[in-house]
Amino acid sequence: MELVTLRRNDGTRAGRVEGEVIVVLDAPTVREVLADPGGLAAAAAADGGETVARAGADLAPVVPAPDKIVCVGVNYRDHIEEMGREAPGHPTYFAKYARALVGPQDDILLPPPEVSTSIDWECELALVIGKPARNVEGAEALDAIAGFCVLNDVSVRDWQRRTSQFLAGKSFEGLTPVGPGLVTTDQVGDGSGLALSTTVNGVVKQQSNTSHLVFDAVDIVTDLSRVMTLDPGDIVATGTPGGVGAARTPPEYLKPGDELVTTIEGIGTLTNRCR
Amino acid sequence: MELVTLRRNDGTRAGRVEGEVIVVLDAPTVREVLADPGGLAAAAAADGGETVARAGADLAPVVPAPDKIVCVGVNYRDHIEEMGREAPGHPTYFAKYARALVGPQDDILLPPPEVSTSIDWECELALVIGKPARNVEGAEALDAIAGFCVLNDVSVRDWQRRTSQFLAGKSFEGLTPVGPGLVTTDQVGDGSGLALSTTVNGVVKQQSNTSHLVFDAVDIVTDLSRVMTLDPGDIVATGTPGGVGAARTPPEYLKPGDELVTTIEGIGTLTNRCR
Repeated sequence: MELVTLRRNDGTRAGRVEGEVIVVLDAPTVREVLADPGGLAAAAAADGGETVARAGADLAPVVPAPDKIVCVGVNYRDHIEEMGREAPGHPTYFAKYARALVGPQDDILLPPPEVSTSIDWECELALVIGKPARNVEGAEALDAIAGFCVLNDVSVRDWQRRTSQFLAGKSFEGLTPVGPGLVTTDQVGDGSGLALSTTVNGVVKQQSNTSHLVFDAVDIVTDLSRVMTLDPGDIVATGTPGGVGAARTPPEYLKPGDELVTTIEGIGTLTNRCR
Repeated sequence: MELVTLRRNDGTRAGRVEGEVIVVLDAPTVREVLADPGGLAAAAAADGGETVARAGADLAPVVPAPDKIVCVGVNYRDHIEEMGREAPGHPTYFAKYARALVGPQDDILLPPPEVSTSIDWECELALVIGKPARNVEGAEALDAIAGFCVLNDVSVRDWQRRTSQFLAGKSFEGLTPVGPGLVTTDQVGDGSGLALSTTVNGVVKQQSNTSHLVFDAVDIVTDLSRVMTLDPGDIVATGTPGGVGAARTPPEYLKPGDELVTTIEGIGTLTNRCR
């Protein structure tokens, strides 16, 4: 099943993708579907109501305002090498705030050049929590994951690197596309073995596979749940593979007009124009 | 004016402290008071309704679920020296999630010893945003600050240091007391020149003054608003002075039964028992 959050004149509504149409659900966003213990089953069964065409539907971030957005850094071996870091013994976490998120077809609002010109791409598999999870592991950790979406952790490199902590460079408003939908684990399993890529203006910049993750989705949920309860709708981005712009010679960054396309096999594609 | 969030049988309610009593307001938490453009004026004028005694009132975190909690690290010269760091050219930001917060008299839930035994104190002045702020500076940045509260950024040092990023060690559930109330800027100005301290079981561990901040409240709001819109109810903790347990010889950490008292002159006191 694939769930999306639709923008409507009167706000947003969750929807279930059914081939060429989206079945409109009785919940404002995918977060409320997940927060209801029977919500996923009800979403799967919903029938006979309003539908809209999938093509041209205006999609919001799949969870527009998660309680938490956690990102994992330095988590693909090739990206660790290109950034000159060492493979970590534990997952490296930093945060984003909901104001960073944009929808899967939205424009990306580059900061003005006097703030930064080093805006970089980072395609990532993101997991979405489906039920409260605290001190879970193994099968229980996997069971806490509702499914996966695509996220591009678009990063402002000079702000990321001006101090020891990444947060500032990772939290710029309107820079992080997410979606297009939440594809449930019954369809994509634990998120392993999926090809992922970034292209800029049609040129492939990142191309890897989630099987190269140092810490996979279950590892991350297990570890994070030692720190805090993960809640329905929480988004955890699992890290990016090699091929980012900052590691190229010379470095390459996004500029107004660029088209950024982020794809994960079996999950979907984000297509965002920079402006 | 001092605003608090009261726990009640039927949820929470905002309140205004008036000497020995709290005037119960028509808003669920202080966040909703701030989110309403006329909310602070209405709170100041509220009269004739229900009151409860200040003594023994059950206080929630002053903003129980902020949209953002931003923390500033390495921001007092004495703490920078004791941690062996260099004074930064820019504020160092990391995040917490709302699940970290507890009220001003709540118990602090130490993680079990197999997870960590290096739990440390960090008294901090925290600002609370009163109106949306984007690309502000100077007087406009100060005007975006509704007021200040006390926050103890209780930190799990081994989790903080196991990777390059602080987040994991700063986000443990139920470890961060905040409050007791929001004291508005008409009473405490820009938050400078305030004595602050931590005691553990009555012994002074930290004692400094907010005048020793490297980046003050206005500097921080100015810089952060380049990254994103700050929203009413957002909490920004400004950093901790010297005297943390990790920098002592030998290191000192919190253990079950300890009483942690965090005070800022003109704002208030947090009294939390570790268990």
